[in-house]
Amino acid sequence: MYRQGSRRGEHRPGGAGLFPGRIGRVPLFDGTARLAVRRQAPQQGGDILRGQPRPQAKCRAEEDPVTLPDDGSAPVNPPARPLAGLQVVELGSFVAVPSAGLALRQAGARVIRVDPVGGAPDVRRWPLGRDGRSLYWAGLNRGKESVELDLASAAGQAALRELVCAGGAGGGILLTNLAAKAWLADDLLRRDRPDLIYVQVTGRADGGPAVDYTVNAASGLAYATGPEDGTGPVNQALPAWDLLAGCHAAFAVLAAARHRAATGAGTFCRLPLEDVALSTLTTLGYLPEAQLTGTSRPPQGNQLYGTFGAAMPLADGSQVMIVALTGRQWRSLLAVTGTVAVAAALETALEADFSDEGQRYRHRKVLLAVMQPWFAARTAAEAAAALRGSHVLWSPFRHLAEVAADLTSAAGGAVWPAEEDGFGLNLVTEGPASRDGSRPPLPSAPRLGEHTEAVLAELAAARSSS
Amino acid sequence: MYRQGSRRGEHRPGGAGLFPGRIGRVPLFDGTARLAVRRQAPQQGGDILRGQPRPQAKCRAEEDPVTLPDDGSAPVNPPARPLAGLQVVELGSFVAVPSAGLALRQAGARVIRVDPVGGAPDVRRWPLGRDGRSLYWAGLNRGKESVELDLASAAGQAALRELVCAGGAGGGILLTNLAAKAWLADDLLRRDRPDLIYVQVTGRADGGPAVDYTVNAASGLAYATGPEDGTGPVNQALPAWDLLAGCHAAFAVLAAARHRAATGAGTFCRLPLEDVALSTLTTLGYLPEAQLTGTSRPPQGNQLYGTFGAAMPLADGSQVMIVALTGRQWRSLLAVTGTVAVAAALETALEADFSDEGQRYRHRKVLLAVMQPWFAARTAAEAAAALRGSHVLWSPFRHLAEVAADLTSAAGGAVWPAEEDGFGLNLVTEGPASRDGSRPPLPSAPRLGEHTEAVLAELAAARSSS
Repeated sequence: MYRQGSRRGEHRPGGAGLFPGRIGRVPLFDGTARLAVRRQAPQQGGDILRGQPRPQAKCRAEEDPVTLPDDGSAPVNPPARPLAGLQVVELGSFVAVPSAGLALRQAGARVIRVDPVGGAPDVRRWPLGRDGRSLYWAGLNRGKESVELDLASAAGQAALRELVCAGGAGGGILLTNLAAKAWLADDLLRRDRPDLIYVQVTGRADGGPAVDYTVNAASGLAYATGPEDGTGPVNQALPAWDLLAGCHAAFAVLAAARHRAATGAGTFCRLPLEDVALSTLTTLGYLPEAQLTGTSRPPQGNQLYGTFGAAMPLADGSQVMIVALTGRQWRSLLAVTGTVAVAAALETALEADFSDEGQRYRHRKVLLAVMQPWFAARTAAEAAAALRGSHVLWSPFRHLAEVAADLTSAAGGAVWPAEEDGFGLNLVTEGPASRDGSRPPLPSAPRLGEHTEAVLAELAAARSSS
Repeated sequence: MYRQGSRRGEHRPGGAGLFPGRIGRVPLFDGTARLAVRRQAPQQGGDILRGQPRPQAKCRAEEDPVTLPDDGSAPVNPPARPLAGLQVVELGSFVAVPSAGLALRQAGARVIRVDPVGGAPDVRRWPLGRDGRSLYWAGLNRGKESVELDLASAAGQAALRELVCAGGAGGGILLTNLAAKAWLADDLLRRDRPDLIYVQVTGRADGGPAVDYTVNAASGLAYATGPEDGTGPVNQALPAWDLLAGCHAAFAVLAAARHRAATGAGTFCRLPLEDVALSTLTTLGYLPEAQLTGTSRPPQGNQLYGTFGAAMPLADGSQVMIVALTGRQWRSLLAVTGTVAVAAALETALEADFSDEGQRYRHRKVLLAVMQPWFAARTAAEAAAALRGSHVLWSPFRHLAEVAADLTSAAGGAVWPAEEDGFGLNLVTEGPASRDGSRPPLPSAPRLGEHTEAVLAELAAARSSS
């Protein structure tokens, strides 16, 4: 196990993972190497549609890059597929619903993404690969089956409803961001499948349309983001509300599945993006504080609110993020920057107690000013060398291309390079979780509509045998 | 149901919810009002510890503000508690692990948060209420039982292990961010509870410490955030990685519980914050793009990458976020701003096709310049009046205090005001999801250690009867 206070965070180009050049990373696949090889697709677990054996979907699974031991034998750990047997139909686009389906698929569920003919509005979303194929769409839909249906026609709508209600005991699950479509109404579907699990992600709580960026503008958070002296709002680059909504939706599916297993009852769950933002900003205290004080928290720059953390400029023009949440981290920061005596004098003079993180925050300007010369006199490598032996939480600010280059040469972890059709060597992931030290093999990203024929044939077979 | 294109987003002070002044919001509690009343706490569902009836925990539940119909009778819809019977022990601080426990508790699980005597380092985290109590801690731990144990002693460690292994079929679940503690090792706990579900959130993938802000610095995202002309990194104000890790951890608990129900097997799941960031930035294409191009995506200001969206300054100094993802939204934006003819002329002259969102992004500077005079000539109210009838996705940028004031006068939704000990009138939430049109009643936030005695008595009773 990695020991705190030793060899932490050294910048070594070519190192693996997010923190450059770390040593002692626990390899996820002991004695194995990731290889892109051709082999049969693994069964995605218990995929029986209405009691019929599931025909092998027409997919490019034989090209799946999988993790194999060096000798080419079967993976050391069997792939962890806790959701084997679950079948989810996903009808949505952009981030929230597709990321919910992705989390379920990565944990072993069969996920069938249904799109209108030609694709949803996200089908060509940037960034694009060399052949114009969307990296974004591929990443969000990897390992799902892709079905195109003419959703403007009654026949296409009926096929979708039939598909949602299929799947046996683990089926009858719909994840969607479509609201207010009569042909997809909860009670219409529930007639055929009373134990239906229907998770509907809407934009606004009233069912109206909204996206991450309008929700963020409306939430108040953008005026609490960005440079301290900034006057305008700053949006976060990450569609965090979408991602959180997706994760809550995946959680809601499993909560409802547990409820169904215990009681036989289905669930209709609504998850407005707006309410994800509002409830999160309430739980973390942003909105209760604004309610109590009547004022809005100003932007903090790269400082942390209510505790001690900041981005410190270095001699070489780069910056390092330092954080001291605990007393130990704070004392270590003073020691490493040689500011113990100055901080003690300030504590006396200001009648402050810097062992309280709130007081460190209150006096952050003078404390940062006292520390800044130490950082300004050092390069990134020099600062790293000193911080490495400390208890301070720290990291250099890195650029995406640096991180990507490191990951491309990585040997293990949550992200790795794989050859993929249309993209060439590409960074891929199966999500952040490892289970019992294992990750499932990597499936390929589908082409739009790749599984339409196979899935419709399955439905027809189930229909004729029932 | 709210109809698109009508009466959307009007700014009307005192309106409810995130989008000010909307009309037609579907009330979550038809015919009910939220009242802070005294009544018995609802049973938290199937809470049997090792087969013993659960004694009523010593808590302030009789002061719970709950949702009652106007006539004071029982809630119209029974509270939705899909996770009734699940018992989770949470040992962690700050956001990730506590938010995971909170999501499980909000869905009906019994969650026991264990802290060292005096509390974890987050116990006084800002923002604070009037009496110095942490709004942040209260929000993240609402409805959990709080147990203080001397975790530095062998007896305290043994009590924690016993508590983790208790809870009958729905127990044996540990959520923690402690790594590398021999007394909390997976195999030690698993000896007593072979079907243990152990979800460990670490900072770095190697088990080393990291927090949201150092992970964000290391991820590369901070250099892709903030003003277009900015040269330094900009952290997001929201601890998005922590929140996502928490949501993934809650999901992992349910996935493992499903696996256990099907196979009898437990799970050890690791979720490094670092891998949450890396896998998310890979799924969304940030890192694959950087890998393919060798360059880092620059900050976009408040514009959207790869499509059309921007913050537009208005005549009164405020700004409005506008987004056009689809062809319909784009055509509507041109129509409402009177730029149809100019855009057509530009399309011809530039040999562009603005029906492709990628080309709208590529030519965004000129397109924004063409539209800006329309916005600059209008106040927020005037812009809203025009946009309300359109298909454009839009919202004014609001301040936290505005949002909080609106919510304080709100009649329903995910966040509402409630009287709470130590805070007075306070904004509270039970999370973003509603199930079958219902939300569970609001439990109070515990005081640190409030349930120590009751929970230890439960353990002793179970021990003596086994």
